[in-house]
Amino acid sequence: MAQIKIDHVTRKFGKNEVLKDISFELEPNKIYGLLGRNGAGKSTLLNIMTTRIFASSGKVTMDQQSVVENDDILADMFLMSEVDLYPERMRVEKIFKQAELCYGSFDYKKAYKLAEEFGVKLTARFGGLSTGYHSIVKLIVALCVPVNFVFFDEPVLGLDANHRELFYQELLQSYEERPRTFVISTHLIEEIAQIVEHVFILDQGKIVIDDETQAIIDRSYAITGPKKAVSDYSVGLNVIGHQTLGGLRTDYIYGDLDDERVIPDTIKIEHVDLQKLFVYLTEGSVNYVKE
Amino acid sequence: MAQIKIDHVTRKFGKNEVLKDISFELEPNKIYGLLGRNGAGKSTLLNIMTTRIFASSGKVTMDQQSVVENDDILADMFLMSEVDLYPERMRVEKIFKQAELCYGSFDYKKAYKLAEEFGVKLTARFGGLSTGYHSIVKLIVALCVPVNFVFFDEPVLGLDANHRELFYQELLQSYEERPRTFVISTHLIEEIAQIVEHVFILDQGKIVIDDETQAIIDRSYAITGPKKAVSDYSVGLNVIGHQTLGGLRTDYIYGDLDDERVIPDTIKIEHVDLQKLFVYLTEGSVNYVKE
Repeated sequence: MAQIKIDHVTRKFGKNEVLKDISFELEPNKIYGLLGRNGAGKSTLLNIMTTRIFASSGKVTMDQQSVVENDDILADMFLMSEVDLYPERMRVEKIFKQAELCYGSFDYKKAYKLAEEFGVKLTARFGGLSTGYHSIVKLIVALCVPVNFVFFDEPVLGLDANHRELFYQELLQSYEERPRTFVISTHLIEEIAQIVEHVFILDQGKIVIDDETQAIIDRSYAITGPKKAVSDYSVGLNVIGHQTLGGLRTDYIYGDLDDERVIPDTIKIEHVDLQKLFVYLTEGSVNYVKE
Repeated sequence: MAQIKIDHVTRKFGKNEVLKDISFELEPNKIYGLLGRNGAGKSTLLNIMTTRIFASSGKVTMDQQSVVENDDILADMFLMSEVDLYPERMRVEKIFKQAELCYGSFDYKKAYKLAEEFGVKLTARFGGLSTGYHSIVKLIVALCVPVNFVFFDEPVLGLDANHRELFYQELLQSYEERPRTFVISTHLIEEIAQIVEHVFILDQGKIVIDDETQAIIDRSYAITGPKKAVSDYSVGLNVIGHQTLGGLRTDYIYGDLDDERVIPDTIKIEHVDLQKLFVYLTEGSVNYVKE
């Protein structure tokens, strides 16, 4: 089974280094989350992996072979990008046909079923559809091409709550029917926390977290209690953020707690969810001026 | 204080009746949520209220005066639309200036503060920004124009989790500083449930719910237990959806329960959140083919 390796990839746009020495691996048949702030470099990374753009240095390989100018490898990857690449006047059924031409085969049966479930007319022209329906057409194609690596860049942009639930269900069902590797890049972190096995967090061009989802949540804590008690308890721990409300303080920790430390009765220790962890971990990444 | 009234508004596009006899009112200084599936007619409704398009019949008035061709009224309303209306080459600072020209004044102090918090460069050209930053520029303008009615159509489209939190905070702070009426149309229902006082749900061109947020949640229930016990209990109640898992069944109810009815020990009654209610209420609205 094929494996993709991202090996010391950097990418500059002019003076701006958008990706800084990125390395990680994608295993076969696994669902990954790729999380990051707006502008963190997620789309650039996905574009490099699928050779839509090139790395300034470093390389991407599948089973030791470079992806660059390698048609066999590229035929095994599909990127559903946030950008709309289809001509405005192209009809949905023609988009499916085009996918078949590019990838050699296409699961029309599933595509028609999904089109019906999501309420997309096969004769509709792409340009006449709303943002939400653009996403829907693109994600149907992504689920029906015969590749082993599917990358979703903002798959649920503009989708209503019902359609988002339907997408997550269909993704899992498609994965069960034909296990392959999915990478989901999204801003709706809470909604995919149950779906992704492994999470990469990209922040300011660097991978700051690369771990199993459960392991990440196991190491994420909120310590709440009277200000002084909390500050005393947290000394030396990896505090990534805090909130105060009157006399109460919450410290957010990412990392192991100190088992030797006595926990006073006045403080409460809970796990925090993935979205909260993400927000605190990446908080400094834009030039906030906060009180 | 001004009040807006939507009075038996219908709108047809060809044979397709997108809005069907819509009536409701917007009070001064209140935050509303306008919820609906993709294609439910939300954007059409907001466009009619701000005279970007016209109703096929019915009317929109502010204090008994029609909004149509009434510059004084239109100067008191702002629509942040999902569509990008600014020229690609226009710089952010020019967009602020243009808003001042259109609306007579503009809160530059707040706009500069928000631009800094969200990390938007004033010299950036609109066309060079990502989807998320398009939304950010547009919502900054919406918060800084001197109007009493601000309509947001998908304000957080493409925003990362941190920026969404920041927007909700800034919206509430702006409301505190200068109370006015906000209408927020969004697919991220859970995130605005705490912010909006009153909710309209638009489904297939009709208003199906027009009520205070708390009143809606008070009337939304999930009844869970053994299949037969749940079905027996729910007879005659307004069941809007159900789920089964093994021998367990959950019925979702919207409406009052029957106080006379005995609740068996085996079933559990809980309130459901706004997003779940929305999903079940509007589930039939596209041509789903579900098992």
